[in-house]
Amino acid sequence: MDKLTRLEAYLRERKEAVDQALERFLPGADRFPEQIFKSVRYSVFAGGKRVRPIMCIAAAEAVCGRSEHALPAACAIEMIHSYSLIHDDLPAMDNDDYRRGRLTNHKVFGEAMAILAGDALLTEAFRLMAQEPPEVDPGIRLAVIRDIAEAAGIFGMVGGQAADILYEGKAADADIVRFIHNCKTGAMIRAAVRAGAMISGAGESDMCALTEYGAKAGLAFQIADDILNVEGEAVLMGKSTGSDNERRKTTYPALFGIDESRRTAVKLVEGALRAIDSFDERAEALRLIAKFIIERRS
Amino acid sequence: MDKLTRLEAYLRERKEAVDQALERFLPGADRFPEQIFKSVRYSVFAGGKRVRPIMCIAAAEAVCGRSEHALPAACAIEMIHSYSLIHDDLPAMDNDDYRRGRLTNHKVFGEAMAILAGDALLTEAFRLMAQEPPEVDPGIRLAVIRDIAEAAGIFGMVGGQAADILYEGKAADADIVRFIHNCKTGAMIRAAVRAGAMISGAGESDMCALTEYGAKAGLAFQIADDILNVEGEAVLMGKSTGSDNERRKTTYPALFGIDESRRTAVKLVEGALRAIDSFDERAEALRLIAKFIIERRS
Repeated sequence: MDKLTRLEAYLRERKEAVDQALERFLPGADRFPEQIFKSVRYSVFAGGKRVRPIMCIAAAEAVCGRSEHALPAACAIEMIHSYSLIHDDLPAMDNDDYRRGRLTNHKVFGEAMAILAGDALLTEAFRLMAQEPPEVDPGIRLAVIRDIAEAAGIFGMVGGQAADILYEGKAADADIVRFIHNCKTGAMIRAAVRAGAMISGAGESDMCALTEYGAKAGLAFQIADDILNVEGEAVLMGKSTGSDNERRKTTYPALFGIDESRRTAVKLVEGALRAIDSFDERAEALRLIAKFIIERRS
Repeated sequence: MDKLTRLEAYLRERKEAVDQALERFLPGADRFPEQIFKSVRYSVFAGGKRVRPIMCIAAAEAVCGRSEHALPAACAIEMIHSYSLIHDDLPAMDNDDYRRGRLTNHKVFGEAMAILAGDALLTEAFRLMAQEPPEVDPGIRLAVIRDIAEAAGIFGMVGGQAADILYEGKAADADIVRFIHNCKTGAMIRAAVRAGAMISGAGESDMCALTEYGAKAGLAFQIADDILNVEGEAVLMGKSTGSDNERRKTTYPALFGIDESRRTAVKLVEGALRAIDSFDERAEALRLIAKFIIERRS
């Protein structure tokens, strides 16, 4: 199998494991009041690529951990990601009607249910991590919860989204764009990688290396996303500006141009790969994922 | 000192301890991006009575626990309470412009910041509990996090709020009104009492008794609140209907009438007191608080 086929097979298998675990960890939609349970499941099972949970599991594997021990944190991270998309799409935020070709949560269930579905997912994520896996030392699990909460909260994703909203349509300098990217996407990808390693009892030097890998891969991922937003729409919509540009979002391409942004993403991925240079073939998935970030076309 | 003066002194002292701890646990408003930190602090320091955290501390004291060990969970519960008020007040939910005589969060900071401030508070609550207090066994702290997440989430407060919204203006029967009350307010008050006891290492029979106390006191609290909403507004606004009635909310007084509702609240408080009958004078604060629930006038 060539590199891409191997990666595709890996991603498909891990995605399936994550989907099955999410199915198990999330309550069914036959409960009362039905609408909120349906609303939660609508967004979690909306065709996401499961990038964050897969990176969490890949990090566990890289330090010889058991992937089933990383699954609860991996699923919790995906629930947090889903909640953030639901809230980001709200009319008061980015006001998006569609995501991945489907109506956004509030377009189907109304704004009130969408806000509550997000709240429910964020809360369930912590409930899950406080409950599973019972085999792992409680002290380690508390550290994972703290780490993920820090990445998701006011010093991470929420703070990044706040800055993104506050700077919409305003002149933002390089520091602010970096802040937004690091917080909004970078922090949770970094936390996903760290969580998989922590749960597996990784030592200090492995944690350092994987933290650097996660931070650089996370930032590269967001820059690549911004580039795709410009180029993808140019191809698909037959126009040269993407939705970020229309909304005057503060992005890397807008500030540094496409070429410079691409160079930055490539450099970040090289740095991510260097950080885990000393790891053996068990880190192969992490390496393939990092390369895939700058090679993907959608 | 008579009963009321003793209770007032107790509530004042504990409220001060909670306010100081919240001040310590919450980040200052001098961070970037300022607006989100300001928005969070605006709602947390908005003159709340701190009923839930005080009950958490009182439960710890009732089982000979150290109140400082209960403080982080107590503050986390207050943060969760604050987030729920911010989101409940949003235009898509209850659409309230004022709370406790001050503009609601979204009227001051805008809807986007209000949604994010709620998200931040919910996340910080879990970060705090995962971090503090280091002296308490990690296994116990995980159990507390799980318990509070369950009470706050889709099977508790969020589920109750969803039902409340879904049944606005619709005919709701007694079962649904009970479901809404138990989930929306009851669950978090019960969890507050349980958290204080759990953190203090309470045994099984004490946990049972305090769980019953918390559940009954919590439901009585919500019914009393509904009665005050009708009667309070009748006095203050010179009209006989309160805001719940205007919005056609499903409340106890609307379904059972004021007198029957008051009898139910009294019976619940009697049951709460009976549940902790065997506790010594250390449970005096819990007893006074339960009685206060049906005696208070605002």
